[in-house]
Amino acid sequence: MKDSTKTLEHRLSRIHTALRKEQFDEVDEIMAGLEAAEIALMLESLPPVERITLWERVPVEVDGEVLLHVHDEVRSTLIDDMDPAEIKAAAAGLDTTDLAELFDDLPQLVAEDMLRSMDELQRQRLEETLAFEEDSAGRLMRTDSIGVRADVSLETVQRFLRWKESVPDNTDALMVVDRNGLFVGTLPLARLVSHPPEMAVADLMDGDVKSIAMDMPTREVATLFQTHDLVSAPVVDVNGMLLGRIVIDDIVDVIRDNSEQALMNMAGLDEEEDLFAPVLPSAKRRAVWLGINLITAFLAAWVIGRFEAVLDQIVALAVLMPIVASMGGIAGSQTLTLAIRGLALGQISQTNSNWLMRKEIGIAALNGVGWSLVVAVLAVLWFGSIGIGLIIAAALVINMLAAGVAGIAIPLVLKRMGIDPALSGSVVLTTVTDVVGFMAFLGLATIFLL
Amino acid sequence: MKDSTKTLEHRLSRIHTALRKEQFDEVDEIMAGLEAAEIALMLESLPPVERITLWERVPVEVDGEVLLHVHDEVRSTLIDDMDPAEIKAAAAGLDTTDLAELFDDLPQLVAEDMLRSMDELQRQRLEETLAFEEDSAGRLMRTDSIGVRADVSLETVQRFLRWKESVPDNTDALMVVDRNGLFVGTLPLARLVSHPPEMAVADLMDGDVKSIAMDMPTREVATLFQTHDLVSAPVVDVNGMLLGRIVIDDIVDVIRDNSEQALMNMAGLDEEEDLFAPVLPSAKRRAVWLGINLITAFLAAWVIGRFEAVLDQIVALAVLMPIVASMGGIAGSQTLTLAIRGLALGQISQTNSNWLMRKEIGIAALNGVGWSLVVAVLAVLWFGSIGIGLIIAAALVINMLAAGVAGIAIPLVLKRMGIDPALSGSVVLTTVTDVVGFMAFLGLATIFLL
Repeated sequence: MKDSTKTLEHRLSRIHTALRKEQFDEVDEIMAGLEAAEIALMLESLPPVERITLWERVPVEVDGEVLLHVHDEVRSTLIDDMDPAEIKAAAAGLDTTDLAELFDDLPQLVAEDMLRSMDELQRQRLEETLAFEEDSAGRLMRTDSIGVRADVSLETVQRFLRWKESVPDNTDALMVVDRNGLFVGTLPLARLVSHPPEMAVADLMDGDVKSIAMDMPTREVATLFQTHDLVSAPVVDVNGMLLGRIVIDDIVDVIRDNSEQALMNMAGLDEEEDLFAPVLPSAKRRAVWLGINLITAFLAAWVIGRFEAVLDQIVALAVLMPIVASMGGIAGSQTLTLAIRGLALGQISQTNSNWLMRKEIGIAALNGVGWSLVVAVLAVLWFGSIGIGLIIAAALVINMLAAGVAGIAIPLVLKRMGIDPALSGSVVLTTVTDVVGFMAFLGLATIFLL
Repeated sequence: MKDSTKTLEHRLSRIHTALRKEQFDEVDEIMAGLEAAEIALMLESLPPVERITLWERVPVEVDGEVLLHVHDEVRSTLIDDMDPAEIKAAAAGLDTTDLAELFDDLPQLVAEDMLRSMDELQRQRLEETLAFEEDSAGRLMRTDSIGVRADVSLETVQRFLRWKESVPDNTDALMVVDRNGLFVGTLPLARLVSHPPEMAVADLMDGDVKSIAMDMPTREVATLFQTHDLVSAPVVDVNGMLLGRIVIDDIVDVIRDNSEQALMNMAGLDEEEDLFAPVLPSAKRRAVWLGINLITAFLAAWVIGRFEAVLDQIVALAVLMPIVASMGGIAGSQTLTLAIRGLALGQISQTNSNWLMRKEIGIAALNGVGWSLVVAVLAVLWFGSIGIGLIIAAALVINMLAAGVAGIAIPLVLKRMGIDPALSGSVVLTTVTDVVGFMAFLGLATIFLL
């Protein structure tokens, strides 16, 4: 086991080769030693045809777990390949929370059929879970928590647990509830095992524990787990009644998804995107982003077009103008990225955004002046015109200041408008730095050189 | 507590306002209800002067915890403000693992003084931890795990735990070792409490459990925790001797840092960067990245300069050329981002990179042809020249194909060279799409329009 992660890439290669050579015994042998999450990774790293070949060799009893571990888009391609009986078999081993996660991706007929074939209690639980909004605590919640009363002794608790003969995975604490089901605290197993059996639960329980409202967004739940170093936390309804618990391994997935999201959105991609999605749908999705950027590019071209007269006379301007736009774009994207991370971490509020703006303007001024000197000297040496040198220096300073201001202002404004700053921030920013860059450079040239 | 995260931004604003108005009673009142991680966030969201004012009001007994929760750069600014006695007091409450994390950031004299004032055992433990490489399992490891023997009964274990009167935080399992300290398995607390006391540890323990080599990189440890949904895992030396355990809340930090890293590195920033770093050092650091990009920009300008003749005659080319470069840059950055995420998740290996390349070429061809038609029509309408329309279409297709190939090839080559693809990928990619874009467009124009 010690070398399991080291050989991950190696095993990936072996599976790819075996699949290509159709050595299915070899494939099955490698798969036999893998966890569901590892099989999920193998499937994600295969193009459509090979992925389906491998998927059909995955034992049905792990199908459900594997489906939970792949990104949404890959999940759909896998479910599309299954017939209703297979889907039902895969879902059979899952608990309500996991089933609810898969449910939205199932073909409607299969979903309805599955609901009909469930017993009353199962169906009711699933419908209750599905009633919570996606990305709310209620959807992440497991209902397998063990409740005990505050007035019993530890010995009674232990007798009860021994009678049950098992405790659910990742249980680090029992939930203490009153006779009406109201949550009053937790009894960590670590305390239970290290204290005298005659003590009462009430004397030992943690009554000061964090409980989570069922409608709290999962992003906030994740922050809470990180801030308080939690392993599990109770979920309560508006009246404080215990509904269930949220466990750290589900939160780890939320944290990872959220950070993938910022990275992917900045390139106009969805974090659920399949690395091996077929060409046609991928091309379609990316076309949208390219189209939006084309508008930006034409806007910049239109700005340049306003200055045809000066470009017609001084060809050096055409040679140098991308430098002004590019340096502004780079400086702006640094500020933008810092602001996007700051917003994600909760470091930025209305009351400190002015400080931040002043800081970024300061940086832009220093780097603007510094690099504009370098660029000016190089431009003078290249084209032998001091006028061009002065003008590119001035344009560069202007554009980098604009980039600094835009890099802070754009994400703040987008956020207040309810738009994800990671998704649209970079397009808006590039528009600003292109337009300001070309306009400053060619405009100054028109005024002073024509 | 239920509204603790909802009011996070609100409290941030209140602290900012109170600090500005020097209402320190109000500041202290807000701070009193905060966890160390929340105080850390408050400090990170303040500019240098206000940060130090707040830092000096943080009670010394939480200083150590707060230092652990801030990013490295912020940590240095805080430590710089403390005198040796304060640093020693802050470190006093920390365990060896946490102390080791801080140790590298301490002024050398303070560090040496601290080592001298420790007792023998403490010093030895700290030196052992510091001997592990940074970002290895040994550095993350806690040495507070509780070991039991396989041949004793559950009742003996419980008696032992009750005698100890406490079990360390986040203990979900006891470690089972043989008489020589060799790790043989774990005994989950959940099993301990739900089975008859006369059973032997050997009959109940999990002997098939994942153990982690002390030199395993933390990134791999994080993958292991995610793949196997672990809460804690034993760490062993090369001989299989139990050294300690790694706990999920330290792994959550690793996961978050790793994903912040990709986002920040793509903009040439460090994930430890302080949002409110002073202007001068920030400007210096960013200057490096701007300088590298300036070389790229001048390279592109030089390419344009080769085609002065054609630009001098047809000014429309100067107007349209940024469109070709920009569309290539956008298309390329989408492919690059997908590849960088794929590499981070372990989805890409040598054996599937050809598949991936073919897919990206297909997408580039479809979008290249599609958007080049749009651009060609608009260019013809704008400048009334069919020649220019044909040439920009051809250049766009060429550049988007180049972007697709480069978007896959660059990160793979960088990774094989041991360079972080997130850090340098985008500069190299922009160089390719700028150079190819300008060269294709102006080169074709020189051949066919002059």
